[in-house]
Amino acid sequence: MKVAMIQNKIVPFDELEPFYLDRGIYFGDGVYEVVRSYDGRIFALEDHLQRFANSLAGINIEGVNINLIRGRVHKAFEATGISNAKIYFHITRGSAIREHDWEANLEPNFLLTVTEAPDDKEEKSKGIAVSTHPDWRWKRCDIKSLNLLANVLARHDAVQKGCGEAIFVDEAGLITEGASSAFFAINGQILQTAPLTANILPSITRKFALEAAKNIGLETAEKSLTPLQASDSDELFIAVTTKDIVPVVKFDGKSIGDGKPGKYTKLLINEFRSFTT
Amino acid sequence: MKVAMIQNKIVPFDELEPFYLDRGIYFGDGVYEVVRSYDGRIFALEDHLQRFANSLAGINIEGVNINLIRGRVHKAFEATGISNAKIYFHITRGSAIREHDWEANLEPNFLLTVTEAPDDKEEKSKGIAVSTHPDWRWKRCDIKSLNLLANVLARHDAVQKGCGEAIFVDEAGLITEGASSAFFAINGQILQTAPLTANILPSITRKFALEAAKNIGLETAEKSLTPLQASDSDELFIAVTTKDIVPVVKFDGKSIGDGKPGKYTKLLINEFRSFTT
Repeated sequence: MKVAMIQNKIVPFDELEPFYLDRGIYFGDGVYEVVRSYDGRIFALEDHLQRFANSLAGINIEGVNINLIRGRVHKAFEATGISNAKIYFHITRGSAIREHDWEANLEPNFLLTVTEAPDDKEEKSKGIAVSTHPDWRWKRCDIKSLNLLANVLARHDAVQKGCGEAIFVDEAGLITEGASSAFFAINGQILQTAPLTANILPSITRKFALEAAKNIGLETAEKSLTPLQASDSDELFIAVTTKDIVPVVKFDGKSIGDGKPGKYTKLLINEFRSFTT
Repeated sequence: MKVAMIQNKIVPFDELEPFYLDRGIYFGDGVYEVVRSYDGRIFALEDHLQRFANSLAGINIEGVNINLIRGRVHKAFEATGISNAKIYFHITRGSAIREHDWEANLEPNFLLTVTEAPDDKEEKSKGIAVSTHPDWRWKRCDIKSLNLLANVLARHDAVQKGCGEAIFVDEAGLITEGASSAFFAINGQILQTAPLTANILPSITRKFALEAAKNIGLETAEKSLTPLQASDSDELFIAVTTKDIVPVVKFDGKSIGDGKPGKYTKLLINEFRSFTT
């Protein structure tokens, strides 16, 4: 007789609830998105849905109707009445007895949560410290997958160091991005960030940050930075869906500029606001 | 009001079962082991428990009592009455609202399954075909974590090509290991496999295969192979807990030797049997 054990309790294998057989938990075999709303309106949902479709295709999860997903996002968001909401959703390949390869007929599992996304005014006005961590992630970070252990460990390391974000440095000694953010430097009138490759998430907020930069007259350069170049920069910031642009005022212990959010970063925060209102 | 949505159904967030907040599913934030029994006796459990402890430490999951885990493995195994069993267990960091960093007081989640592990006599007697795949995994494959999407995609690719296992090739063009196995070549009287690094799982079956090789008078060399070196080898095999040694008779479409399991591989299979009986 096949059995399972949950904590200390034995249960017949065939009575396991489907969620205990979710390939999400055995393999991280799924993809996700995080979107947010500003004042009751979801921001850039179509960009996120397009990226979600790309992630699904990237791991061969087929037959998901994106229109259905869009409808679920709206339905759940409207049910909450939260004006500034963080909407998380994922799809896993489905539930089955654990085998690496999958059967073609699996029914994907969908999970979504809607929670408050309060703007952290102090972070935005004072900026955050960041610390570097080796980029241990897999080689397909262009896919927004549930394999996030490297991100979790890097973020934990950063928090232990009193920092708000970890910045990944790859084996070539170049910065890729943050544990859950894109990373930017400003020098003179040039905004610089790593180019999109298989090692970088095509961040929606990154795209809008680059657009905001053009709007305020900055040049943009998609070129990787070393940690030394980053810590010597005039200004630094990260960009992430839930917080949009957050100034970085300390990099591996070194103050950036005068240790306060830079002037262009503040202009970019304002410009970004024009996209979301 | 915070909400969640499971498939198409909205539920109050606060009524979510803990499973839906398992960090295992959001981040793959956990580690696992697979052990098996031969004729009613669990093989090499202490090795697996030691590696499990190392994996837990590797991702900072603290306070797990390994004696308790050992007891659970025995209790569940004995409850089944299965003589040749596959015992899978994992621990995740616990259940909490999704945030990359974790709270110190989380209670880890334990899940274990015991299922049949029938010996595939045909695979052992005829051998399997394997195909190569880029090694997309993260850079801490010495930790047996739940971040297995690269393994899943590689295995799927192999199965699509009619193969039984995928063999990972890193960016330097060297073979690391299989998607869920260690990989070995025999040339002359030398058994060769990749050295243990952060990119390789310290496979228990690999350890016993090396020991078996010494017992039958083979030299051993822990040195990485290229795919070309592999496909030109006298003999190839993989080693994996659930199947111990399985001959490889085809590598990326090229027959190995005379296309049948090699003589030393067969001797190793016999020698391995002496460990398990």
